[in-house]
Amino acid sequence: MSLTIWCNAVFAEADKQLLIEGTRSHKLVFARSASASVLDAGKADLDLPNADVAFGQPDAGQCLALPRLRWVEVTTAGYTRYDTPEFQEGFRARGAAFSNVSDVFADPCAQHVLAMMLALGRRLLPSHRDQLTTRAWGYVERRYESRLLTGQNVLLLGYGAIGRRLMELLAPFGMNLSAVRRQIRSERGIRIIPEEAVSSALAAADHVVNILPDNASTRNYVNARRLACIKPGTRFYNVGRGTTVDERALLEALRSGRISEAYLDVFETEPLPVDHPFWSQPNCYVTPHTAGGRHDQDTAIVKHFLRNLAAFESGGPMIDRVV
Amino acid sequence: MSLTIWCNAVFAEADKQLLIEGTRSHKLVFARSASASVLDAGKADLDLPNADVAFGQPDAGQCLALPRLRWVEVTTAGYTRYDTPEFQEGFRARGAAFSNVSDVFADPCAQHVLAMMLALGRRLLPSHRDQLTTRAWGYVERRYESRLLTGQNVLLLGYGAIGRRLMELLAPFGMNLSAVRRQIRSERGIRIIPEEAVSSALAAADHVVNILPDNASTRNYVNARRLACIKPGTRFYNVGRGTTVDERALLEALRSGRISEAYLDVFETEPLPVDHPFWSQPNCYVTPHTAGGRHDQDTAIVKHFLRNLAAFESGGPMIDRVV
Repeated sequence: MSLTIWCNAVFAEADKQLLIEGTRSHKLVFARSASASVLDAGKADLDLPNADVAFGQPDAGQCLALPRLRWVEVTTAGYTRYDTPEFQEGFRARGAAFSNVSDVFADPCAQHVLAMMLALGRRLLPSHRDQLTTRAWGYVERRYESRLLTGQNVLLLGYGAIGRRLMELLAPFGMNLSAVRRQIRSERGIRIIPEEAVSSALAAADHVVNILPDNASTRNYVNARRLACIKPGTRFYNVGRGTTVDERALLEALRSGRISEAYLDVFETEPLPVDHPFWSQPNCYVTPHTAGGRHDQDTAIVKHFLRNLAAFESGGPMIDRVV
Repeated sequence: MSLTIWCNAVFAEADKQLLIEGTRSHKLVFARSASASVLDAGKADLDLPNADVAFGQPDAGQCLALPRLRWVEVTTAGYTRYDTPEFQEGFRARGAAFSNVSDVFADPCAQHVLAMMLALGRRLLPSHRDQLTTRAWGYVERRYESRLLTGQNVLLLGYGAIGRRLMELLAPFGMNLSAVRRQIRSERGIRIIPEEAVSSALAAADHVVNILPDNASTRNYVNARRLACIKPGTRFYNVGRGTTVDERALLEALRSGRISEAYLDVFETEPLPVDHPFWSQPNCYVTPHTAGGRHDQDTAIVKHFLRNLAAFESGGPMIDRVV
C-alpha cells in the first residue's frame, strides 16, 4: 500500500533524511508553505487534497473537508485547533485517525516539573540570584527554608501522559498524589478526584501542578474562586497552557503571599511581554515555554511518526491516538 | 540504667524540650560552652568527664582520654575530627560507640543533587538569569539545550547513605549508575568500581557527583589528573567537601569548557570568599553549603539521638554507627 504523505514540518537536515528514508515505500510531499514554528496556526495548503496522511500542523478545517485524508499526526502535544466536537466527530464518522506526539514531550515535561519542585524546595533560584548579585552566603537562611518533598501532597490538574510520567518520577519521594481529570477512571498509585471534590483537594495540597491543555472547558480553570481554596504556603506550577489560568487572580494571590511561590512555563500571551508583572514578582519564577524541550526533539518526533506509520499500515495500535 | 548525657548542641526551644522529655530517666547536662555552630571545632569541656554519653560536637582528644564515655553521637553527617585511626581504634578497643546523623541529611543531600542535575538539564538557572536581567524569551535556545537525564551515565565519587538515597531517586530515570568507594562490596542497582578503573569511569560519565567526605585519603581527590579523564561536556557536582577538589584545576577545566558545567555546594574555604573566581565563572553554579538543609533539621537530629539512645540502652542496633 503506497500512501501519499504530506508534511509541513520543518526539520534539521539529518531528521529530514530520517523521514525521507523511513517513508521510501510511499510518496512524501513537503508542503510548499512549510511551517517553521509548530505553534503557528495551520493554513489551507494546495498539496493537502492529494494526501492520505498528514504530518505536521495542517489546517483543521481543510482536513475535515478532505475525505481522502485518513490519518493526521500533529508534531505537538497540544492540539487545541483539533480539540473540537466538529473535528473529532467528523474524523470518527469517516474512520480517520488523529494522533499527537505526547509521548515525545511527556518525559521532558515531567522532568521539568520535578526540576521546578526540587529547585524551589532546595532554594536553588534565590541562591543563584545571590550569586549573580550580592554573593551573600545564605547558609543558615537557605538551609532552614529548604523543604523535603518527602511525604508532601501533590495535586495534578489534568492527568495524561505527562502526569503518568511525573507519577513515576515522584514515586521514590513517598508523596500523596491526587489528580483532577475529565474522565473519572481509577489509576494505580494516584487518587483521581471528581470536579466536585476539587475545593477540598486544593485545600490539602502542598503543590498544585497545572498540566491542563487549552480547550473550551479548561479556559480560566484556575480562577480567583479556585485560587482562594488553596491553603497558604502552597506552591503552584503551570506547564499546561497559559489560557487555563486567570493571570490577574494568580498575581493577586502571589502579591498577598497566600500562594507562596509560582513556577510558570506557559502564559496567556507568549512570549511573555517584557512589561508583564510576572517578570518582576519576587515569588514568581518564569521559564520560556521550555518544559517539553529536549535537544533531540525533532529526531524523536520523526521516529514517533515512523513508528505510527508502521502501525497504520499494519492496522496495529498507534501511540498517542486521540481519535 | 541511668546515664549522664552531656550535650553541647544548641537547639530551638521546642527541640530542646523534646530532648529533655526524651531523656527524663537520665541525667541531661548542657555544656556551659555550648556550640552554636555545628561546624565549630569542639573544645575541651569541664562537664564532659562525668558523662557516659556525649551528644553534639565534643573535643575528639578529650573523648579519647575519658574512659567513662561509652557513646558519642555527633550532630553532623561529616566527622572529620573523629575520622582518624587513633580515635576509632581507641574507641573500638574499649568497646565505646561513635555515631553520626547521616540519616538526617541523606534525603536532603540526595534531593539537592537531583535538583542540581535537573536544574542544569532543564536550563532553569539561565532562564532565571534572563528573568532577572534581560527578560529575553529564550524559547528556541533553551529548548534545544535541554537534556533528558534518561539513559545517561552517572558516576558517584563516594557511596554511603547519600549515594544510596540518590540511587533510589534516580531509579525512574533509567540511568547507568557507577560509584567509586573505599570498600569494594557489590550493591544492587549500582556498579561499584575499584580505584584502578576510575579513569575509564570518569571518561564514560555524563554526570560526576562528588559525595566524598574530608579525610586524609580524599583530600584533593578531584585533581588535574582525574579532571583530565573526564570527557568533554560532562557535568560536575560537589556536595561532599571542598577539600576533596583541587579548585584551581577545576576552574581551569571550567574555563577551557572541557567540563561543561559545575554545580558546587561546598568549598575549600567557607563562606566562599566574595572575590573567589567561582562566583563569576558563567558555567559554575554555587549554593551556600545547603545540600543537607531541611527546615525540620534540629527536630530530626534530636529524634535520631533518642532513637539511638533507646538502642544503646537495650543493646539493639544503632543507626549511623561508625564505630
